Amino acid sequence: MMTRASVGEWLDRPLVRNAIIGVILFNAVILGLETSSSVMARAGGVILFLDKVCLAIFVAEIAAKLYAQGLRYFRNGWNLFDFVIVGIALVPAGQGLSVLRALRILRVLRVISVAPSLRRVVEGFITALPGMGSVFLLMAIIFYIGSVMATKLFGGAFPEWFGDLGNSAYTLFQIMTLESWSMGIVRPVMDTFPQAWMFFVPFIMVTTFAVVNLLVGLIVNSMQDAHSAEDNLKTDAYRDEVLARLVAIEARLAKADDTPVSK
Amino acid sequence: MMTRASVGEWLDRPLVRNAIIGVILFNAVILGLETSSSVMARAGGVILFLDKVCLAIFVAEIAAKLYAQGLRYFRNGWNLFDFVIVGIALVPAGQGLSVLRALRILRVLRVISVAPSLRRVVEGFITALPGMGSVFLLMAIIFYIGSVMATKLFGGAFPEWFGDLGNSAYTLFQIMTLESWSMGIVRPVMDTFPQAWMFFVPFIMVTTFAVVNLLVGLIVNSMQDAHSAEDNLKTDAYRDEVLARLVAIEARLAKADDTPVSK
Amino acid sequence: MMTRASVGEWLDRPLVRNAIIGVILFNAVILGLETSSSVMARAGGVILFLDKVCLAIFVAEIAAKLYAQGLRYFRNGWNLFDFVIVGIALVPAGQGLSVLRALRILRVLRVISVAPSLRRVVEGFITALPGMGSVFLLMAIIFYIGSVMATKLFGGAFPEWFGDLGNSAYTLFQIMTLESWSMGIVRPVMDTFPQAWMFFVPFIMVTTFAVVNLLVGLIVNSMQDAHSAEDNLKTDAYRDEVLARLVAIEARLAKADDTPVSK
Amino acid sequence: MMTRASVGEWLDRPLVRNAIIGVILFNAVILGLETSSSVMARAGGVILFLDKVCLAIFVAEIAAKLYAQGLRYFRNGWNLFDFVIVGIALVPAGQGLSVLRALRILRVLRVISVAPSLRRVVEGFITALPGMGSVFLLMAIIFYIGSVMATKLFGGAFPEWFGDLGNSAYTLFQIMTLESWSMGIVRPVMDTFPQAWMFFVPFIMVTTFAVVNLLVGLIVNSMQDAHSAEDNLKTDAYRDEVLARLVAIEARLAKADDTPVSK
Repeated sequence: MMTRASVGEWLDRPLVRNAIIGVILFNAVILGLETSSSVMARAGGVILFLDKVCLAIFVAEIAAKLYAQGLRYFRNGWNLFDFVIVGIALVPAGQGLSVLRALRILRVLRVISVAPSLRRVVEGFITALPGMGSVFLLMAIIFYIGSVMATKLFGGAFPEWFGDLGNSAYTLFQIMTLESWSMGIVRPVMDTFPQAWMFFVPFIMVTTFAVVNLLVGLIVNSMQDAHSAEDNLKTDAYRDEVLARLVAIEARLAKADDTPVSK
Repeated sequence: MMTRASVGEWLDRPLVRNAIIGVILFNAVILGLETSSSVMARAGGVILFLDKVCLAIFVAEIAAKLYAQGLRYFRNGWNLFDFVIVGIALVPAGQGLSVLRALRILRVLRVISVAPSLRRVVEGFITALPGMGSVFLLMAIIFYIGSVMATKLFGGAFPEWFGDLGNSAYTLFQIMTLESWSMGIVRPVMDTFPQAWMFFVPFIMVTTFAVVNLLVGLIVNSMQDAHSAEDNLKTDAYRDEVLARLVAIEARLAKADDTPVSK
Repeated sequence: MMTRASVGEWLDRPLVRNAIIGVILFNAVILGLETSSSVMARAGGVILFLDKVCLAIFVAEIAAKLYAQGLRYFRNGWNLFDFVIVGIALVPAGQGLSVLRALRILRVLRVISVAPSLRRVVEGFITALPGMGSVFLLMAIIFYIGSVMATKLFGGAFPEWFGDLGNSAYTLFQIMTLESWSMGIVRPVMDTFPQAWMFFVPFIMVTTFAVVNLLVGLIVNSMQDAHSAEDNLKTDAYRDEVLARLVAIEARLAKADDTPVSK
Repeated sequence: MMTRASVGEWLDRPLVRNAIIGVILFNAVILGLETSSSVMARAGGVILFLDKVCLAIFVAEIAAKLYAQGLRYFRNGWNLFDFVIVGIALVPAGQGLSVLRALRILRVLRVISVAPSLRRVVEGFITALPGMGSVFLLMAIIFYIGSVMATKLFGGAFPEWFGDLGNSAYTLFQIMTLESWSMGIVRPVMDTFPQAWMFFVPFIMVTTFAVVNLLVGLIVNSMQDAHSAEDNLKTDAYRDEVLARLVAIEARLAKADDTPVSK
């Protein structure tokens, strides 16, 4: 029987890692073919079987990792991500829920946790988020206030768009993306409430300005991170050397100054 | 009876501050529930009562602050903001105006003036505005000129879009956001005035370019502020030290130079 | 009679300059009121008279400047700008052309040439353009190629959108702004030519990418300009001083080294 | 007979190069005139003849280059680009394919490979791409997953938009550009599947965020490239000189220190 350490080592081998990526991509193709009714009519059985084979490989890999790492496995975010994504496919004992079947394609996202370059991009996205926390919170507050106001003001006359808080929030999100905001929503609303632009135009300006600020914040942060990393190290090393040399020169001069006196 | 200073101190305690944030968030939920007619049918009395309790707490807090700070209270922009926002709820003795009732949700914005992290974001927004003043002024001039021209040229044939200065300004704002500008507005206008694109296409280009310049200005400003703050201080300190040490070395050498002569 | 120099000096006085700004803004209001048929019905004569008074003041100002500066007047771009803008109002002896009357509002743009802060923004815009020249040229080439291709491929079936080069260029501009590109244009075209997306999707990607590059170029240029201007001067001054002091120290040491020998 | 070297030299002469640019621009005009049926009716024969003359010149130029450079010709990307673009016009012996005829206008793109300033812009675009590779790959994965899910979930009810993977990918691209995403696609879908927003709103957020990250990455990269190039060289030269001088001073002092001893 294999030891925990040797299983963990085996899983980390480039060959095993690349084989897993291969299975993920093969599974992606299989799940893509499942969407074609003509392919399914001719070779549906084979495709469903191959999908199950892929799933079995993923389950085996996770089981091996769990065996190798024990409970430490769940401390890593990417492991949890794999666990949930693969787990989804095992849930629907009753085949009723088409949504759960559709979610199986999320397994392809596993390629992110396996390929280091993609992993770094996603980790970059995620580390950028906390710095934007306050702006996101502010956006949430603006959306909540906007939804309550829009529901109270326009909910009675336009129930489809502003009937309850959920509808209003969706419609305001659409307006924030500028999609059909005027011809589709605000002009019809203004036929009933001629002053409605006093609500919507400032809403667009505020949310757009907030989005721009998010963008600017992201750019400034990324720039500084990129800038400081390597450049500052070099600058600091140079400065330390200059100061050290200047101190040494002064010390020598002080000694030289004293020497004649002592002579 | 409590002194002014002790009231001010009590209001600044973290516990009191957090309690106020709690009341604001609770009030936000209450005002959200008010939009649901089914909830109002079952528990409308309770909800309206709780809203009044929240309002009373806000009024009491502002009264306490006014007592503690006197007229200095009105020198702070955020205090004025709180005062107006809470004041709105007290105005409509006659319940007629549904708009004023809808504005009560603006009280939730108080959370910005109480939570330091949100306050900083909004203050960042506001301090970014003056630097953009000239571009905003230019945009206003372009919009005014565009509105007058559009009203004169297209107002007769398309009164709904360009009937007067207000309609034209709204339509030009819609065009600036690129919403349905062509299929919705300019193509129909071109059926009557085939040369209309000579007005609208340059308008889009100029306003988009101005918006891009605003964005660029914001990014450049933020970047320099972020850059200079800490980094420049360090650089200046280093440079001052290098120059001071060089001057000291020269002074020592000058003295050493003179010493033999005097000997 | 006043000398040329004294006229030029008088025109540059802050009081005269501000009076001209006042006349421009007053003229802007007058031209705005002209768009309101109810105002024109009641006070049309007064408004048209006041407009003529403003125009007379502008003509007088330009004449005075021409007298003061002679032909040098036309060497300044802003003077030319003023000359053309005011000149437009004098052209239409026959009142037929409503377009020329609408162009009179362009006079309000004179406020840009008079107010230094606005002037600087516009000059900033204009100086940013040449650096973007190659990208603009590339966009023009892409638009020309796209228009010829779209006209040849889709012109027969969709004459309203792609009937000739002008129509195609306008439609492609609309598509570049992403306005109704799919639901309005490409989906209907794909009903006839199912492969049409192979033309339009790459077109959107290429033009969007070019616009993004324009934006990035602008940001990078502005940033460097802002950065170098003041900061680099300071850095260069510091570096020159450090090197000069080091050279001086070395010279002293060289002399000290030689002195004992010569002694 | 001319040697290979002399032919290569002749092709590189500014005069020859400019003549080729002239032929390209003339050919662009000819191909533009071809789109006008009235021009073709009057002078179709002349235009088709002139187009053939231009094509002959291009073929001759490429043949000359091939003679001068031999197989090295195909190692240069721009040469391959020219070869394919001109080659397209020679393929359709049978005049049936109107698409191939439309592609002849792509010859105008040759101006990019000939004019150095345009060439640099395009090379800038292309060198920016690899750094964005991971984000593009991630976008492709998101689009593939989104297409499979949308086809499985909504394909049955909305075959025109989500009937197969291709339709879904196109519709998701439209949604990513925010064109009519809500009024055109998501609201109709929500009439059948009320929870559809749970798929589309996160899709918009993720793809928009990815696009923003692409943009930020591009800006940061460009900025650093622009910054380092010239500035860093200057800084490094300065630092090397300061350190060299400090070392020299220390060496002198060390010698001076020893001298009295040796004396």
